[in-house]
Parts: sequence; C-alpha cells; structure tokens
Amino acid sequence: MSDSHNPVIVEVVRGSIVESRHEGSYAVMASDASLIASAGDIDRPVYPRSAVKAFQAMAVFENGAADTYNFTPEEIALMCSSHAGEPRHVAVARGMLTKLGLGPDAYECGTHWPTREEAAYDLARAGEEPGPIHNNCSGKHAGMLALALTLGADTHGYIAADHPVQRAVASVLGEVCDCDMLTAPRAIDGCSVPTWALPLRNIALGFARLASGASLSDARRDAARRIIEAVRAHPFMVAGTGRFCTALMEKVPRAFVKTGAEGVYCAAVPHAGLGVALKCDDGASRAAEAAIAAVLAGLDVWSPAERDVLASLARSPLFNRNHFEVGEVHAVAVN
Amino acid sequence: MSDSHNPVIVEVVRGSIVESRHEGSYAVMASDASLIASAGDIDRPVYPRSAVKAFQAMAVFENGAADTYNFTPEEIALMCSSHAGEPRHVAVARGMLTKLGLGPDAYECGTHWPTREEAAYDLARAGEEPGPIHNNCSGKHAGMLALALTLGADTHGYIAADHPVQRAVASVLGEVCDCDMLTAPRAIDGCSVPTWALPLRNIALGFARLASGASLSDARRDAARRIIEAVRAHPFMVAGTGRFCTALMEKVPRAFVKTGAEGVYCAAVPHAGLGVALKCDDGASRAAEAAIAAVLAGLDVWSPAERDVLASLARSPLFNRNHFEVGEVHAVAVN
Repeated sequence: MSDSHNPVIVEVVRGSIVESRHEGSYAVMASDASLIASAGDIDRPVYPRSAVKAFQAMAVFENGAADTYNFTPEEIALMCSSHAGEPRHVAVARGMLTKLGLGPDAYECGTHWPTREEAAYDLARAGEEPGPIHNNCSGKHAGMLALALTLGADTHGYIAADHPVQRAVASVLGEVCDCDMLTAPRAIDGCSVPTWALPLRNIALGFARLASGASLSDARRDAARRIIEAVRAHPFMVAGTGRFCTALMEKVPRAFVKTGAEGVYCAAVPHAGLGVALKCDDGASRAAEAAIAAVLAGLDVWSPAERDVLASLARSPLFNRNHFEVGEVHAVAVN
Repeated sequence: MSDSHNPVIVEVVRGSIVESRHEGSYAVMASDASLIASAGDIDRPVYPRSAVKAFQAMAVFENGAADTYNFTPEEIALMCSSHAGEPRHVAVARGMLTKLGLGPDAYECGTHWPTREEAAYDLARAGEEPGPIHNNCSGKHAGMLALALTLGADTHGYIAADHPVQRAVASVLGEVCDCDMLTAPRAIDGCSVPTWALPLRNIALGFARLASGASLSDARRDAARRIIEAVRAHPFMVAGTGRFCTALMEKVPRAFVKTGAEGVYCAAVPHAGLGVALKCDDGASRAAEAAIAAVLAGLDVWSPAERDVLASLARSPLFNRNHFEVGEVHAVAVN
C-alpha cells in the first residue's frame, strides 16, 4: 500500500463532533474502459473478496453447469450471495446440494454461526449447531461443486487455486476485468477459495461489462443477464433481513450491488452500463455501505425518486442500547 | 476532526500484501504532565467511552459508596469492566444489586445479548432472553446505583448528565484529567450515560495519575490503589474469556489496560507512573489492541520477558472459517 492517504469518505458523528472517520477510494467505469468518476488511489491491488461472487457464478454458467442442474433464479441469486444464514437461505442451499446428489460434507467452506444473530439464536434454541450450509458462502460453494461435477473434476479439493474450478474462476475474472491473473497477488478468502487482488479500476470495468454485456462472449453476456435478473428478482437471497445489499436493491431495483469483506463494495448499473468498485481502507463495512450509496447517488443516471433513496442510504442514524439516537454514520462528499 | 491525517499504526496483511490499514494517534504521559511519547494529533477531543470506567468507578469510592456496600475486589473489578456477559460476570453483577436492595429493573443501561458468542448461545439454548444484567456495562451501572443511594439521590434517572451521579463522575474526570468539563463536547454512550470528549494528552495524564497517585487527593489516591489492585487480582472480570484486556493483564500483571468503543485503548503503568491513551481513527478494536500492545512494548519500563509478551500481542494471526492462517494484524512502528 502506498504512503499516500486516500480521502475521508465517511464520518461517524456522536453528539456534536466526529468520533471516527473512514478513508477510501473508488472508481466508476464505463464498459469502454473510460473512467467516469473516482477518488483516491484506484490502481493499487485490492482483494475484492465476496464482492465478485457474480463473476465466480459466471464460471458456473459458461461451462453449462447452471443449466445441467437447472438452477432456478433463486438458486442463482444464492450463488452470488453472502447470505445471513436465515432458514430460507439454508433451504435453498440444501436444495442445490440435493440436485447435485451431494451432502453438506462435500462443502469445503468451513462453518460459522448464521451471521444474522436472530437466526443464530433460533438455531441454538432448537438445540442445533451450525454446519457449512450456514456459511454465508454456501450458495457460491454449491455452484462451485456443480462446476466441478460438470467439468468431470474431483469435487474434493475444489477450493484449491490449481483445481479446474478455481482456474475457471480466474479465467473469468482475468478476462472480464482485463487483468493478468498470473501476476495478481493471490490470497485465501474466508471460505478458503482464492481471492486475487486487482485494481479498483479493473474491478469497476468488470462490473461495467457485467452491466452492459459489452466485450463479453455471447455465453458470458447471457450469463451476466441471467445473474442480474436473478438477483433483481430475489434480493433477499443475496444477503438477508435488514442487510444493506438487500435493502438497497429492494428500494432501487435498477441497481445491482454486492459487498465484500474488509470494506469492499461493488455495483453495476445495467441501464447505464456503468460499474463501480469501492474499498474502505480500514475494512469497515459501515463505511463501505454509506459510501457506495453516496457514489451511486452521485451518478446522473437515476430518477429523482431513486436518487433520493440512494442519498438517504448514505446516512444512517446510530442508536445505543436503549434505542436512543446518539449520532450518525454519513458519507462525505469527495468530489 | 482536523484535515491532517494521523499515521498508519496497524496493518492487516492477507497473502503477500496489505489488505487494510488503520490510522491513529496516542500519547504517553508522566504524572508531572510531561509527554513521554506520542504519534499523531493528541490535542483534538476524543470520546474515551468505556476506557475511563476506572475514573467512573473512582467516583463511587470517594463518596463512600464502595465501602458502604462493602464491594469486594471482584465487584470493584466489574465496576471497571466491559464484560462479556459470561455467567460469572452476571453472577457478580447480580450480587452487587442484592447488596443495594435493587433488582435488574433499576438498571438504565439497556439490554443486549452477551458479547461472548458462546455465552449468548448458551442463554438461547436455555430458553432465556438477555436483560440489562448482561449488558457489558452492568458492573459500572451497579456502582452508579450505589453512588445514587449513598448520595441520597433518586436512583431513577441516574444516567442523565445533570443527575448527581454523573455530576460526580464529571468532577472526577475533570480534575484527574485536568480538563474543563463544561466546555468538553458531551455525547451519550452506548449504555446511555454521558461520555465527554477529551484530548488524548489529558486522558493519558489521568491514567498517569491513576498509576502513580500523584496530584490526587488522599481519598482518590486510595481509590486508585484499590481499583488497580482489584483489577490486577481479577482480570477476568474486566473483559472475559479470550478478551484482549484480560489476556494482556493475565500475561503482564504490571500493566493496567482498558478498551473503549470506537478504537480507544488506555493503559496505566503503576510501577513507572505512566499513562497511555490511544485512538484508532476509524474506530476498529482490532487495531487499537495491536497498537496499545506495541506502544506499551516500546516503553523502557519492562523486564525482557514482559516486553516479549507485549511485542507478541502487537501481532495476531488471521484465521479463516477453516482455521487456515491467511494473514495477520500487526502494529506498525511509528517513531
């Protein structure tokens, strides 16, 4: 990371003063690779983490796995999801495994309690323990298992960087984002698949191509369209009750957004052919949420009603343990 | 907050590159108000939040409440605590209320699930719901209720800034930290009591005085000694299983540390008469933890074994959902 500081993009106010602040950078790209807007350093490599699940899902389409297993739009949305482990998410993931003829022991994503606390407490009340099916990435991993089966590869070890599944994912990412994946820094994600660090400029380009289909093969253009339609139809599957991705897409169905760990947020604006990639330097989700809403609101591609909703999502009140409003988190105008 | 940036104090590494980074500032003070070390801006006001619970507890001593109710060292440690809601924490808080002749409905701190996840799941498994007794501040609030009773004030409304309890707390903070509390920005904390923003320089001075007793009245010097002895004897009560405050004080008993929300960490070094106050600008606890360990390790007041332990706490590995080590969080040398 360079010594230069990115601008403050979000402030946290308590009482009359700023209590905390978040720096970051973002790029808004058109699918012809022209830069529409930006702030901060957009050329250093950033791990997009779960924000590029749509591209990981694209690999499942072009190899025919999505059709072989007749994945429904709800299942496709779950492939692109960091879900909260609510009962409906788990049921859809389970249905995908059933189609594959596999059990949850095929998963190599690891286990954690549902990220929605109420779902976790319900599980505990029922005397149950979480399994990999509750992992927020279980839909993505079901897609990867489908891809392994379709490729005739061993399902065991599908998370390794040199497995045909991850090679297919790397191929999609490299071509859609116009990056050399052999030189991109590679690390291991929370769910144990590879994550490659790419410049925000390139990630945003990938989302612009997802939005427009431009520069994509016919198969990928079709996959992009089906992914966006699936997520638009089932925004609950992408995150969950009260989650920012779900709330934003429910309120502004013309936007496609996806969060990633460590303060990443990406977006596609299909009707305008634009892509956005944003990283909060310190990795804070609260800041990435406010900032992506503000960046989207600043684009001249919305109806007044849509813009008002996006602008309102760029500010959220802070409540304490007694539900007193004690401050707020708000995006800061950068440009 | 000024436009100037504080230095990067902590980096989060994944694979071969820095994934996220945290900026911040700190002050190390002696009790004669001399500045021993610092980084960044230490003169802008910072809400210390729960990091100054020892000063809030001091008000309970000087009014005689701690003796009237014969609070034990374990109870005194819980007054200074942001506890994890584990059964022993809850039992001690309940015992304090019993001494006061009050029930949990006297609490005005609000309710949340135990912050230690396992304790929360155990509560759910038992078919129970959390109450204010599980609030991480329930020990502090028991002390405040004791103070209200001792002052002959109404226990109802003890969280308000103009209640005699909070006036007594403000008086301690102002005198110990050498600040004018009438002009200090004031906001509402997570548990609904006031939190006043003070410069890190002054907060660190307060901790140096807590450490040394210098410039304190006899009553406060005695309270400071008893608070430090109580916390030293019961570091578990101050936080909980696996928590950073508890772990650090168990491993380095000559250090006194306390975290506060939004990236604050404070420390007192009684044997050297030093105080430390640190704020991570973005409010991240993971960064404040690594940084306070590094700042303490950098002080020339430890045995080689203590310094090694502190230095080791300034770095922590990152594990993913499969318990693979995928990176680390580490403090960055600033001076």
